[in-house]
Amino acid sequence: MTAPRAGGPASPDDRPAEETLDPSDWGAMRALGHRMVDEMVTYLETVRDRPAWQAMPDEVKAGLRAPLPLEPRPAEAVYEDFRRLVLPYPLGNIHPRFWGWVIGTGTPLGALSEMLAATMNPNVGGADHAACHVEAQVLAWCREMLDFPREASGLLVSGGSVANLVGLAVGRNAKAEVDVAQAGLRAAPRRMTLYASSETHNSVKKAVSLLGLGRDALREVPVDGDFRVDLAALRTAIAADRAAGCHPFGVVGNAGTVNTGAIDDLPALADLCRAQNLWFHVDGAFGALAALSPALRERVRGMERADSLAFDLHKWMYMPFEVGCVLVRHPEAHHATFTAPAEYLARAERGTAAGPTWFSEYGMQLSRGFRALKVWMSLKEHGARRYGRLIAQNVAQARHLTERIERTPELELMAPTALNIVCFRFRGEGLDEASLDRLNQEVLLEIQEAGIAVPTSTKLRGRVALRVAIVNHRSRREDFDLLVGEVVARGRRLAQTMAQAGARG
Amino acid sequence: MTAPRAGGPASPDDRPAEETLDPSDWGAMRALGHRMVDEMVTYLETVRDRPAWQAMPDEVKAGLRAPLPLEPRPAEAVYEDFRRLVLPYPLGNIHPRFWGWVIGTGTPLGALSEMLAATMNPNVGGADHAACHVEAQVLAWCREMLDFPREASGLLVSGGSVANLVGLAVGRNAKAEVDVAQAGLRAAPRRMTLYASSETHNSVKKAVSLLGLGRDALREVPVDGDFRVDLAALRTAIAADRAAGCHPFGVVGNAGTVNTGAIDDLPALADLCRAQNLWFHVDGAFGALAALSPALRERVRGMERADSLAFDLHKWMYMPFEVGCVLVRHPEAHHATFTAPAEYLARAERGTAAGPTWFSEYGMQLSRGFRALKVWMSLKEHGARRYGRLIAQNVAQARHLTERIERTPELELMAPTALNIVCFRFRGEGLDEASLDRLNQEVLLEIQEAGIAVPTSTKLRGRVALRVAIVNHRSRREDFDLLVGEVVARGRRLAQTMAQAGARG
Repeated sequence: MTAPRAGGPASPDDRPAEETLDPSDWGAMRALGHRMVDEMVTYLETVRDRPAWQAMPDEVKAGLRAPLPLEPRPAEAVYEDFRRLVLPYPLGNIHPRFWGWVIGTGTPLGALSEMLAATMNPNVGGADHAACHVEAQVLAWCREMLDFPREASGLLVSGGSVANLVGLAVGRNAKAEVDVAQAGLRAAPRRMTLYASSETHNSVKKAVSLLGLGRDALREVPVDGDFRVDLAALRTAIAADRAAGCHPFGVVGNAGTVNTGAIDDLPALADLCRAQNLWFHVDGAFGALAALSPALRERVRGMERADSLAFDLHKWMYMPFEVGCVLVRHPEAHHATFTAPAEYLARAERGTAAGPTWFSEYGMQLSRGFRALKVWMSLKEHGARRYGRLIAQNVAQARHLTERIERTPELELMAPTALNIVCFRFRGEGLDEASLDRLNQEVLLEIQEAGIAVPTSTKLRGRVALRVAIVNHRSRREDFDLLVGEVVARGRRLAQTMAQAGARG
Repeated sequence: MTAPRAGGPASPDDRPAEETLDPSDWGAMRALGHRMVDEMVTYLETVRDRPAWQAMPDEVKAGLRAPLPLEPRPAEAVYEDFRRLVLPYPLGNIHPRFWGWVIGTGTPLGALSEMLAATMNPNVGGADHAACHVEAQVLAWCREMLDFPREASGLLVSGGSVANLVGLAVGRNAKAEVDVAQAGLRAAPRRMTLYASSETHNSVKKAVSLLGLGRDALREVPVDGDFRVDLAALRTAIAADRAAGCHPFGVVGNAGTVNTGAIDDLPALADLCRAQNLWFHVDGAFGALAALSPALRERVRGMERADSLAFDLHKWMYMPFEVGCVLVRHPEAHHATFTAPAEYLARAERGTAAGPTWFSEYGMQLSRGFRALKVWMSLKEHGARRYGRLIAQNVAQARHLTERIERTPELELMAPTALNIVCFRFRGEGLDEASLDRLNQEVLLEIQEAGIAVPTSTKLRGRVALRVAIVNHRSRREDFDLLVGEVVARGRRLAQTMAQAGARG
């Protein structure tokens, strides 16, 4: 169905007929599209009936090692390959009982909107066309949702890591004592240093390394018992660096840490940054969206005072990958960090090369896909208030799970549940810490391999914890009840096995 | 159709029923998906019948400034908004006569594969699931296509700009005299400098700025009459910097410059880099893919010797945005640049957290979408040889246009046509250079605004040139004939008007 077709009349000079990648049979492509829609919608409708995750058989992995295809195959056959080798083995985050890492769920209309975006296939780097206006509107909505000023600039990006990178790049350049964008960091008279709690996401460490500041420039400040940055320790660290001849230029505040969902004291950090002329960047990867719930809004108060704010829409807004956002309070500083004029990118007053904002001048990418469309369609479909309710629902589910853990003597909560992340372990009786680590790791793997659920693990104060991060609109309270039951039953059995092995040993 | 639905039996403690973002009526979502497929396939089938580009009416722009939606609306109504406000106003790069900037076309199966990817919605940062194996396979295919060694590492990225950034970041760290990833660039004993021709893409300038090297660290080397880097000038610049106490660490070679498609002498650059211990990065954004055509392969010979190679699949592979690739000859150096361990990302031998490659350790993004799927399906659909033929076809079309220009006395070729980019202008008779600049800019805008075609413009040696960059599988020879006719007819008319105005003036 996709054989080459002649491109008009035979050329007079015997040059070969021209071909195209368009299908020769559009009706067949349409029929294939219908089949895909049917099967994809059904795939999502029935997701609860399948395992949350399953290992890939070796023969399937082998099928994904075939060499480069040289000749064409019918699109239907390619789709069969997808159905056989790919579709049965998802990561699992579409499943109601996936709570691993912090990975959102997606929605049916979100998936369909990706097809619409790729059909139009615009480059949203700039120029005058609808997609640029849609992204501008989505950015305005993001500012509105998070109480950021109208004048702030913004950019949709691949996710929180790049959003953090953009915010910190602007902060580095804005606070530097010389024009480091032009002259480089070696021209800076003093070493630039950045401050963040030890619970901060590793993308901040990657960012300072990429930005040429070096990982040593990130001063990791201890946390308190609630895993929030210790403000006294922060002040001490900044003062010590100043005394040692460094140049403290910024602080990263967390609105929801990845380990435990802890929220730093953002108003205090905003005050400190203002008083000490520091760039205030907030990593609100998922936590920022708590602002959509009237009941939770106060918990993230202070982030609207940030100089730059990073957050994801593919996490706690449940949109398909990839889409995150960075908002910057200082549009000129944002633009200056990423603009680089070129003759072939010259603007025009009219025609295609006019247009509102050239988004390519606010981030690294020059070619930019239409990720704004899924945000635009999703926010219109559900409305901001429903998102707020869903977010509150996930927090209530975390509370529900926490209460279940607290009521179960064999289980132990490993960190306070600040928001939507619950860290706990099977404790049992009479097992030493090393044994508990092994036991909990094994419980986790069993539950994953049985396809029951996908929590992941972390270490908190040196000990293995099962970690349940809830950014899932398909989860129900009974899903968490099921998890508790499985952890207790498997923990008991493994504890008994380990005790017997110990007795024999 | 998307009203909340109850999530199981009413809770015993009067907590509210749980809701979801899934549709209450799956059949209605399925029907909407069918309608979208019909309309999107028809949209592409009939694209030639519509204008290449059209300006957006003010009332449509106003419709894209409405405030944040608070309440839900039916998915069908949201789709109607899309059909009314967005779909009629594409950038135009899906049209057979779009040759602006360097922007690919997309394909119908490419668009459908985005829906499949977003339905499964995996995070391809790592873990054990099909999408990671698909990306690994696609990267193996990319190495095979471009003669890169099997052992090389790679990553799919948003496009050439980020691919350049990744390659240069690895080069910076690999060639630095101290561990700059850890200690920062201020710890480097000498200033690090990078070399590239003055025709190099502005993403390289953005990269050195972001990396903390500073834009001054990029030494722009003059070009010869064919817009290729002047090798003698390059050697002189490197020697002068060494003499001045700088640390030259790398050279960027161009496989297809953005202005004219010029290809630097890559074997000579590879030799020079080897001899002088410099990182050899090749920006092959579109030109690298010429290697797929046996007739063109020799022109980009030498790029397979690069330390890092950046290229796009959404340009000359005609795939939907966004997808580019970077290949790195030194996997350890690549990994060391982007890895940053974290407790909650700990690997496991089994279960979900096992898996082949953790792609998040080879680039900035931790959350990564399933962009590999459209590459996988497209390469299976068409096979590498057809892509090679299409690329050669675009080059033949550029040759055809060039010959038409050379045979037309009123037109002037503004640069040699090295590959698929043609730069020319209407010359007419008796107009001075400033008038010719104005005239050609006006010809361009008229042709865009009439919806006939979308070339863009650039400046070459200070003069405005119409620029036709052909990465379009829908273009036919007669489309270029049409362009020539329009430029001549409009050029004549405008020249006459300008002469009359001059006579009156």
